[in-house]
Amino acid sequence: MDLLAFLENRATVRQYSDKEVSKELINRLLEVAGHASTTGNMQLYSVVVTRDAEKKKALAPTHFNQPTFTNAPVAITFCADFNRFVKWCEESGAEPGYDNEFSFFTAAIDTLLLAQTFAIAAENEGLGICYLGTTTYTAESISKILNLPKRVVPITTITVGYPKSEPAKTDRIASTSWIHEEEYKDYSAEDIKKIFGYKDEMESNKKFIAENNKKSLAQVFTDIRYTKKDNEAMSKSFFDFVRKQFMCE
Amino acid sequence: MDLLAFLENRATVRQYSDKEVSKELINRLLEVAGHASTTGNMQLYSVVVTRDAEKKKALAPTHFNQPTFTNAPVAITFCADFNRFVKWCEESGAEPGYDNEFSFFTAAIDTLLLAQTFAIAAENEGLGICYLGTTTYTAESISKILNLPKRVVPITTITVGYPKSEPAKTDRIASTSWIHEEEYKDYSAEDIKKIFGYKDEMESNKKFIAENNKKSLAQVFTDIRYTKKDNEAMSKSFFDFVRKQFMCE
Repeated sequence: MDLLAFLENRATVRQYSDKEVSKELINRLLEVAGHASTTGNMQLYSVVVTRDAEKKKALAPTHFNQPTFTNAPVAITFCADFNRFVKWCEESGAEPGYDNEFSFFTAAIDTLLLAQTFAIAAENEGLGICYLGTTTYTAESISKILNLPKRVVPITTITVGYPKSEPAKTDRIASTSWIHEEEYKDYSAEDIKKIFGYKDEMESNKKFIAENNKKSLAQVFTDIRYTKKDNEAMSKSFFDFVRKQFMCE
Repeated sequence: MDLLAFLENRATVRQYSDKEVSKELINRLLEVAGHASTTGNMQLYSVVVTRDAEKKKALAPTHFNQPTFTNAPVAITFCADFNRFVKWCEESGAEPGYDNEFSFFTAAIDTLLLAQTFAIAAENEGLGICYLGTTTYTAESISKILNLPKRVVPITTITVGYPKSEPAKTDRIASTSWIHEEEYKDYSAEDIKKIFGYKDEMESNKKFIAENNKKSLAQVFTDIRYTKKDNEAMSKSFFDFVRKQFMCE
């Protein structure tokens, strides 16, 4: 299959078979991903690979004990890392100035380009992957367990394994709705209905709405999955931690 | 060539031929990239495609008039976008709570996974791409020119075109130096020397160090390319803008 068709038909894999994923393969996929674009060739990232049962047990609560995490043969925590680069500066008679949120964000960009290149490379090898959003929810706890030093912050985790079964493809809104030509064209109420309308009509979503006693899929998002209260709490905890790690506050 | 070898041998392309890049191809590549992982299937991004000469002229200073930008047939600004999703919530009787930095960061993650999937798909079609870090330096100016509403922040820009010549591959530190098994293993001074030592020995870097009247490559980074002063100024301007866009301050 050509790459475009492959990318178009991919789907997240949350259940894995018992088939072993070798260290050699993971390291090769990561090495290859290391050729993704990076800011000024600084490579502001590190990854921590989790396979060990004890380590997985320690990390499980940080990922809310999701079976996707606990049953995955491998989980990789992708971290924004200015520690290594700063140490190089210090060893080279240079005075680094990277103790700030902007430098954190620059490193986060590098980290995510690495992570996504790894994800595509892994899927191309027949592996299934799942991104865990829980990483930013519990970044400080994860950092303690993985022994991350100052200037290193976990950004995302990818679980990896051979798929237990063919994963179901997820719906997407039409790409024309998020591609803007020359200028951003803001959305009218009618546009919004045209773009998202199909979602409330999907049988799986109708079931999901009913199970949650809500009137619309959007309410499931705002009232249960991603609430104002949770977002505000995480806004504080995550960025407080970023500042502690990067600004040595 | 298989995908792993392809990813390993890629390089950033900063000079483009006159060959046209069709709108159909760009839209197809973006559409395919839209199947990348996204937080809770919220697709918290938009892209603005720039081709128009007038628009390019207006944007050029935000990218420091780099020829990579001004000579590229196409430039795509990838934006974290909670505007569309919030409008959907409001139209669906749901009360969104996404006016916070954490939601911004969540949207930025989605945006970067989209951008990198697009980049790989584009390179696979024979196109050359270059990420522009200037996007976060001048996010507010870019937003005005592209007419971005509240809750939309530009994260990165990718220039696209057919390569004028074979690009030179950039060096990378050994992947073993940033892959940690089970726990982060911090770097000793000796480790740092082993990891980065080759950089100061490269002929191209020796020239670069001499041209800049510095004693080490690290000093070129700290004193010229990414200075403390610039990082701190951008830390303020970028996150002030994020807060203004997302928190309606």
